[in-house]
Amino acid sequence: MSEAPPAGVLTVDLDAIVRNFRLLAERVLPVDCAAVVKADAYGLGLAEVAPALARAECRSFFVAQLAEGVALRKILRRAKSNATIYVLGGLMENERALFEANALVPCLNDLGQLEHWATFCRARGQPLPCALQIDTGMNRLGFPAADLDRLAAEPKRLVGVDLCLILSHLACSDEADHPMNRRQLGRFRAALDRLPHCRASLAASSGMFLGREFLFNTVRAGVALYGGNPTPNAPNPMEQVVQLQGKILQVRDVDRGETVGYGATHRFTRPCRIATVGVGYADGFLRSLSNRGSAAIGGVTAPIVGRVSMDLLTLDVSAAPPELVRPGAMVELIGPNRGIDDVAAEAGTIPYEILTALGPRYERRYTGGAASSE
Amino acid sequence: MSEAPPAGVLTVDLDAIVRNFRLLAERVLPVDCAAVVKADAYGLGLAEVAPALARAECRSFFVAQLAEGVALRKILRRAKSNATIYVLGGLMENERALFEANALVPCLNDLGQLEHWATFCRARGQPLPCALQIDTGMNRLGFPAADLDRLAAEPKRLVGVDLCLILSHLACSDEADHPMNRRQLGRFRAALDRLPHCRASLAASSGMFLGREFLFNTVRAGVALYGGNPTPNAPNPMEQVVQLQGKILQVRDVDRGETVGYGATHRFTRPCRIATVGVGYADGFLRSLSNRGSAAIGGVTAPIVGRVSMDLLTLDVSAAPPELVRPGAMVELIGPNRGIDDVAAEAGTIPYEILTALGPRYERRYTGGAASSE
Repeated sequence: MSEAPPAGVLTVDLDAIVRNFRLLAERVLPVDCAAVVKADAYGLGLAEVAPALARAECRSFFVAQLAEGVALRKILRRAKSNATIYVLGGLMENERALFEANALVPCLNDLGQLEHWATFCRARGQPLPCALQIDTGMNRLGFPAADLDRLAAEPKRLVGVDLCLILSHLACSDEADHPMNRRQLGRFRAALDRLPHCRASLAASSGMFLGREFLFNTVRAGVALYGGNPTPNAPNPMEQVVQLQGKILQVRDVDRGETVGYGATHRFTRPCRIATVGVGYADGFLRSLSNRGSAAIGGVTAPIVGRVSMDLLTLDVSAAPPELVRPGAMVELIGPNRGIDDVAAEAGTIPYEILTALGPRYERRYTGGAASSE
Repeated sequence: MSEAPPAGVLTVDLDAIVRNFRLLAERVLPVDCAAVVKADAYGLGLAEVAPALARAECRSFFVAQLAEGVALRKILRRAKSNATIYVLGGLMENERALFEANALVPCLNDLGQLEHWATFCRARGQPLPCALQIDTGMNRLGFPAADLDRLAAEPKRLVGVDLCLILSHLACSDEADHPMNRRQLGRFRAALDRLPHCRASLAASSGMFLGREFLFNTVRAGVALYGGNPTPNAPNPMEQVVQLQGKILQVRDVDRGETVGYGATHRFTRPCRIATVGVGYADGFLRSLSNRGSAAIGGVTAPIVGRVSMDLLTLDVSAAPPELVRPGAMVELIGPNRGIDDVAAEAGTIPYEILTALGPRYERRYTGGAASSE
C-alpha cells in the first residue's frame, strides 16, 4: 500500500507449492495432474503461483470464472506457457467470444450450454475445445440426469465441438468412508459409458487419496497444493505454504477481574500480560476466532482473549518468552506452529476459507518460484 | 478483472453514505462528526468513499494503520481536501518521519509512544499534532492506568508536542444498558480532569446514541455511515448503502431424498427447484451462511441449501417467481430485502465483518458521490 511498515506479513513459499504439486503429480502417475487456481490461487496470488506451477510443467489449470480465465491466460502468456485453462463455472451465451479469444475451455454444465457452444463452433467453422461437467450427486453444477439422458440419446448434439474432457466433482471426498464417494464413482462411470470416449476427471485433492479407480485421466489438485490436508483424518502429507505474522502494537498488564475487547467477553481470572496485534477480521482473520484461536510466540501458544476486532486482536502472552513480547515484534498467526488446518478448526471452518479470506492489508512476500525453472 | 461479465455485482451508494454522514452530523451538532474509513472504508472503497465524504465537509478521518493514512492523504489531496487524518494504531519509532511527511496524526497509546513523538518534535523544532488514546476498559489500545498516572504527575512529558485530541473507545456501546458504558464514561472524564485541557472524543457509531454526555467534542462515525445499525435492539435509523447481486449459473430440479453440496448436509424432503449462484466464501460471502443464509428473488426469500462453497452457493428457489429464475439472472444477496444486519445475524457475526469481507471478484459499481459537491 505504501512504504509504511506493515502490521501483518504474509509469506507464500512458491517452492513449497511446486513441491506439493510434484508430490501429487508423481503419486498419480501416469495420470495427469492439473492445478486448481481459482479464487486468486486460493487467495495466495494467481500472478505468482501460476507461473511457478507452469515452470514445474503443470499443463492444465482450472479456474471458476471467465474473468479468472482471462487473467490467467495473460499471466501464462507472459510466462511462455500455453497450458490448457478450464473454466468450471460454465458458459453464458454472451461469453463465447471471450472464451475463444483467450483460448479458454468452458466446462459445459447442461444441454443449453452445449447448444450455445456447438452453435458458436459451427458459426466459426471450427471445433473449439470444451469439457462436459456431469452432476453425479453434488447438485451444484453439471449435467442433470435428464440432460444426460437426452445427450446419450442424441449424440449428434456434440457434432462440431471438440470434446476434450468429461468431469464431475465429489461431494464428500474428505471422508474416505462416506457412501457418497462410491455412489458418485458409479454414476460417473455410467455416464462415461453413455458418452463418446473421452478423457475423464473425477478427483480433486481429497479424491486422489480414495484409490486409483477415482483417478481416471486427470486429477485436479487444489487445496493440497496450498498446504491443506487432503486426508483430514490422517496426518497431513503436504508441506505448509503460508506463514502469517502479525505485529505487536502494545503490551499491557491486566488484573484479575478485568475484561478485554468488545462486549467484555473475556474476564481474566488472574493477573495476565496481554499483547495487542495489528491484525483483525478485516484482514480475513475470522471473527469466529474470538476467544478460540491463538498465536505462537517463540513456539509458545498465546491464546486469543476477547473478540477479534476489525483491525486488532489481543493475545494472552503471559506464558510467552518476555523478550519476544514487545511492540514491533511479530507473532506467528499461521506458520510452523499454527497450520492452516489448526486455524480452520479453531475458527469452525475449513482451511480453504482461511486461505481465501487472507486480506489485502498484509505485505505479501514470495519466496522461491524462480529456481524451479526446469 | 477484465471485460468478462461478472458473477457478482457490488453496488455502493455514495449518496447514501453522505446522507448517513449528514444525518449523524446534524444529530450531534454542535459536536464535530468525524468519519472512520479504516479497512478500505469498511470494505467499500476508500478511494471512492473518502472524496464523497470530504465533499460533504467531513473534516476529520480515522484510519487504523499508517499505510491507510498514507493512502488516504493521497486521495484527499487529489480531492482538494486538507482534512485531519488520525491513525488509531499508534506509533512505532521508525514510522515517525512518514507520519510527518503525510501530515498524519498518531493516536499515541502509551508513554513510550509519547516519548517517541516528543523526541521527534524537539528534533524537528516543531510541535507536531498528536492525539492521546486513553484505555478506559477495552484493554486493547491506549494509555494504561499506570502510564496515565505518570503522565498526570509529569505533564512536562507533553512539552513540545501539539496535543489536539484525547480519545477513548467504548467496549459495549451497542448495548445501551451495559454497565461498562457508564464505567468507561466515568474513567474517561477522570482522565480528562488529570490532563491538559484538550478536545475529547469517546463515542463511535453506537456511542452517539447513548446520550449527549457521551459526545464530548468529536464523535467517530463508522459502521453507521455504511448502513449498519448503531442501535441493534431498535429499528435501524441509517440508510442501506450496499447492494450485492449474484448471478444464477444453473437451475435444476431435485427429487425428495437428494442432497446438495459438500458433505451432503442438506437433504430435500420434497421435490424442489434449486439455483446455483456464482458467489462463494472466496467472495467473502461467509461459509457460516451454509444452510442458514438466504437470497431474495423478486422479493421472495430463497434459502441457501447446503454448504456455501468457494465460488458457488445453492438456493432453494421453489417459491420464487419462475420467470426470474433462469441462468444469467441476478439474485439479491444484500439489498432492500436483505440488509447487512440480516446477513450478519444469519452468519453468526456482525455487519462490520459482512462489509469488510466483501471480496475482490465482484464488479464494483458506485452511484452518486459527485452530485454532493457542495
